[in-house]
Amino acid sequence: MTQYLTGVAASPGIAIAKAFKFASVNYSPIKESITDIEAETDRFRQAVEKAKQEIEAIRQMTEEKLGAQKAEIFEAHLFLLMDPDLIDNTIDKIADEQINAEYALHEITVAIVEMLQEMDNEMLRERAADVKDVSGRVMAHLTGKPYATLSGISEETIIVANDLTPSDTAQLDLQYVRGFVTEIGSRTSHSAIMARSLELPAVVGAQAFLDRVTDGAIIIMDANEGKVIIDPSEQELAAYQEKKIRYEERKAQLKKLATQASVSADGVHVELAANIGSVEDVAKVLENGADGVGLFRTEFIYMGRKSFPTEEEQVQIYKHVLEKLDGKRVVIRTLDIGGDKELDYLELPKESNPFLGLRALRFCLTREDVFRTQLRALLRASTAGKLNIMFPMIAVLSELREAKRILEEERAKLIAEGIAVSDDIEVGMMIEIPAAALNADAFAKEVDFFSIGTNDLIQYTMAADRMNESVSYLYQPYHPSILRLVQMVISAAKRAGKWSGMCGEMAGDQIAIPLLLGLGLDEFSMSASSVLPAREQISRLSQAEWKSIAEEALQLGTQEEVKQLVEQRSASR
Amino acid sequence: MTQYLTGVAASPGIAIAKAFKFASVNYSPIKESITDIEAETDRFRQAVEKAKQEIEAIRQMTEEKLGAQKAEIFEAHLFLLMDPDLIDNTIDKIADEQINAEYALHEITVAIVEMLQEMDNEMLRERAADVKDVSGRVMAHLTGKPYATLSGISEETIIVANDLTPSDTAQLDLQYVRGFVTEIGSRTSHSAIMARSLELPAVVGAQAFLDRVTDGAIIIMDANEGKVIIDPSEQELAAYQEKKIRYEERKAQLKKLATQASVSADGVHVELAANIGSVEDVAKVLENGADGVGLFRTEFIYMGRKSFPTEEEQVQIYKHVLEKLDGKRVVIRTLDIGGDKELDYLELPKESNPFLGLRALRFCLTREDVFRTQLRALLRASTAGKLNIMFPMIAVLSELREAKRILEEERAKLIAEGIAVSDDIEVGMMIEIPAAALNADAFAKEVDFFSIGTNDLIQYTMAADRMNESVSYLYQPYHPSILRLVQMVISAAKRAGKWSGMCGEMAGDQIAIPLLLGLGLDEFSMSASSVLPAREQISRLSQAEWKSIAEEALQLGTQEEVKQLVEQRSASR
Repeated sequence: MTQYLTGVAASPGIAIAKAFKFASVNYSPIKESITDIEAETDRFRQAVEKAKQEIEAIRQMTEEKLGAQKAEIFEAHLFLLMDPDLIDNTIDKIADEQINAEYALHEITVAIVEMLQEMDNEMLRERAADVKDVSGRVMAHLTGKPYATLSGISEETIIVANDLTPSDTAQLDLQYVRGFVTEIGSRTSHSAIMARSLELPAVVGAQAFLDRVTDGAIIIMDANEGKVIIDPSEQELAAYQEKKIRYEERKAQLKKLATQASVSADGVHVELAANIGSVEDVAKVLENGADGVGLFRTEFIYMGRKSFPTEEEQVQIYKHVLEKLDGKRVVIRTLDIGGDKELDYLELPKESNPFLGLRALRFCLTREDVFRTQLRALLRASTAGKLNIMFPMIAVLSELREAKRILEEERAKLIAEGIAVSDDIEVGMMIEIPAAALNADAFAKEVDFFSIGTNDLIQYTMAADRMNESVSYLYQPYHPSILRLVQMVISAAKRAGKWSGMCGEMAGDQIAIPLLLGLGLDEFSMSASSVLPAREQISRLSQAEWKSIAEEALQLGTQEEVKQLVEQRSASR
Repeated sequence: MTQYLTGVAASPGIAIAKAFKFASVNYSPIKESITDIEAETDRFRQAVEKAKQEIEAIRQMTEEKLGAQKAEIFEAHLFLLMDPDLIDNTIDKIADEQINAEYALHEITVAIVEMLQEMDNEMLRERAADVKDVSGRVMAHLTGKPYATLSGISEETIIVANDLTPSDTAQLDLQYVRGFVTEIGSRTSHSAIMARSLELPAVVGAQAFLDRVTDGAIIIMDANEGKVIIDPSEQELAAYQEKKIRYEERKAQLKKLATQASVSADGVHVELAANIGSVEDVAKVLENGADGVGLFRTEFIYMGRKSFPTEEEQVQIYKHVLEKLDGKRVVIRTLDIGGDKELDYLELPKESNPFLGLRALRFCLTREDVFRTQLRALLRASTAGKLNIMFPMIAVLSELREAKRILEEERAKLIAEGIAVSDDIEVGMMIEIPAAALNADAFAKEVDFFSIGTNDLIQYTMAADRMNESVSYLYQPYHPSILRLVQMVISAAKRAGKWSGMCGEMAGDQIAIPLLLGLGLDEFSMSASSVLPAREQISRLSQAEWKSIAEEALQLGTQEEVKQLVEQRSASR
């Protein structure tokens, strides 16, 4: 019987193949007393040595297949095999307790893994998989049992597993493996990141999945939507074959655009940038050929921790992103906390309407210590690339002026301390409050750029919480009221000789893009995966033509009318 | 030593005089056995009869002094003296328990008063004071002790009491009594309403007040602000004498305007209407010579009850208000519940941001039963005067259309039922959501009028909860962004040949009025007490002149600049 499951769409694509159930060998060694400590220690050292050679081989293979960057993970594994926490502790345990190497290694591994898994930092938690991976490899040599491997697959398969280690993933033979589905993991686990680099469709976190699938069963995985179908019907198979072909054709077509400029059919250049939330997201920005980063949501740096990040920690992060973007523009938004975003270590007063409360810059202006630390970090990192600083949730001029005053104070202090600061930093603001859009002319004189945050702008303009199902019908991005505000902002920027961008969902939306192009938007910032489709769409649009259509749209009364207009005019060319 | 207290400003004015401590005689009769039931019953009937004669005398006096309407309360008292709950029950108790009339009356009175005080309906709770009043009067005749009276005062005094009964208040000799302060009561208690009719300054609900004041102490009461000063200093006395004179001069001056038209210095007629929340507020609207009711907040009809008000109950209320306004326009807003307004008998889902949630018309469209009942009541009452129906919290056209469709359905049903419905009802909407203001041209084609609700409009335009102290600096009614939205609404109405009003706080604000007049607002609806000052202010303003000043204001960047502009231009004439 056909079964349907959903998981996390970790790496896009569609695959149809037989399931290959992969289970790591489960080593639960028995505790044995030994007498010859030296012999046992030697045996352990030899196993470690063999594991090193193996990993080095995988590392070389990965470097050849995927490049030096992807092979870095195996260098980390080699280091782990020299880590005293793992190796010396195991040797000590063998001697102290006079026990067999297998049991000592097992105990030490479990302790380290547990410790790492309790960490607040997601990156450290992910390291647990690496420790298990190298330890398993050593164990294979100690026990003589083979380390479970995926390298021997010789027909088209989709790997299904509870979890995959980085070395499992690296060894996948792309000639035969069409994708994988795991029960645990998130978009940021190593296997997910690796899958995206390999361009291998992956669905992770498909809970209670393994028991439902038999080895060799036909599976459809639509990793664009995180869907998995076990034992599909003939019709489903045919439909997904078709879908898969279309998806791959389109992908190949888009791929060609990754290195091209973002330019309309009538030769108007725009900037197609990507939104990011962490250092990890940068790879995708580059892969998709974005023209820059239009929104770095720094609040994620502050989350999942036990205290505010230090100035030094932040400098490293901002520098890394600026360096990776290699001279392309990076718009970094200062801390946007409050509303629905909380920090474990920050007790904010309970508010009746947090979306209308003390959030983002409003909060920062009441906690100058936090704000100044971030501004200093930004200024210190500024020499590493093309930095733009952006303030969120500004309603009135006095807020902007106060934020700029504090920024200038910190700049002056750093310069007095002899620290280099770029003199090419643009300072701008989000437009996400109706008052700011309505007063854009006054703001345009005092900023270098605007970026319209449509998610909040729509929410406030419609007076409808975008998280509240009962009023979700009011989330209308193409509503003439919204378009009028957008138009006010773009025109005000143009009048003042500044540039305007948009970093909400709307900037990557197929219906909105022609209108925004027509209204004269300079920069569109969206999720990295939308950049290439947007570039393709814009290459087919004439800005001059959409200018007059956008003017028509501004005269309409409902979102439905606007949508209809765009669809009609798009179809008619 | 000088002491300062605050209470509820129940009736405006300033008074300075000696305190007269008034305490109702406390009847706590002793229970006595009787044998001659008939004689005791007779004694009781005679006491009731004497009380009736006394009340009739007070009624006549009140009618002569204050008019028939104010005397109505004493007709109610006369009815109480025929009420079986009070009279027959007392007679039965005398017979059943063979006890003295005093004790029987006392027990019955206490039972009725307790029952009334537990009621959910405020009007019924207030009746408890009436029952105590008439019962006390009968008791005086039974015991031969005098019923405490305020009629013998012969020097300027401020009455201080725990509470005043309606008959206490009616007997106040206005030649000497300058005001009163009570420990209990609210703005809607009978004594407060009476004080406003008598134009006698009153502060009520000044808790724990009596113990602090000695008989004959000098008291200043500023009933405009609910302040009371006991034993003031020489300076305070002098300052308040001065303040009192200025207040009274101004009052006399304004009073003359109550019967005049609302017209600017250059002859432009506007409508100065008042906001009301209940039938009781109508008196003040008439006293202050308002040109109509610009906002009847019907949600108060739904509050403090155990279930939704019936259609019939609502018809009576709407009819009463329409009749009292005698052909002047009455704008009745349909139910505005949700946000910070809850009903005890209605379980609404908990929302993270209720101000951005399912409120007002949004709620009504999900509870058509509740909505239709109100619309039917409004339509049925419509023949009693000049009714305007207004829908709150509209963001998009589909909401307006849906509300109008339901209204028309109910109208058709009533007509089919043979019930008379006025064919002169105007249907309009609040403009309190930025999207509605930005889309006013489209709305103007489908309504008869707009009324701008500034409290919410400012809150959403600034994305700042007006109840949240941390962001209260963003409540900026004169901000250019707000003025621009107001201007869009007024212009859209004019273009479509409709009228526009405003019913938020801003409509009665001295700084805002000249700008609103200049922008061309047709109707200003405010608290009744602001109508005469507004009429006076407008009579001194030239609309033509303020038109150009308002255009200047629209070009500014901050609220401070706007305020400065208005103050400068106001001072310069």
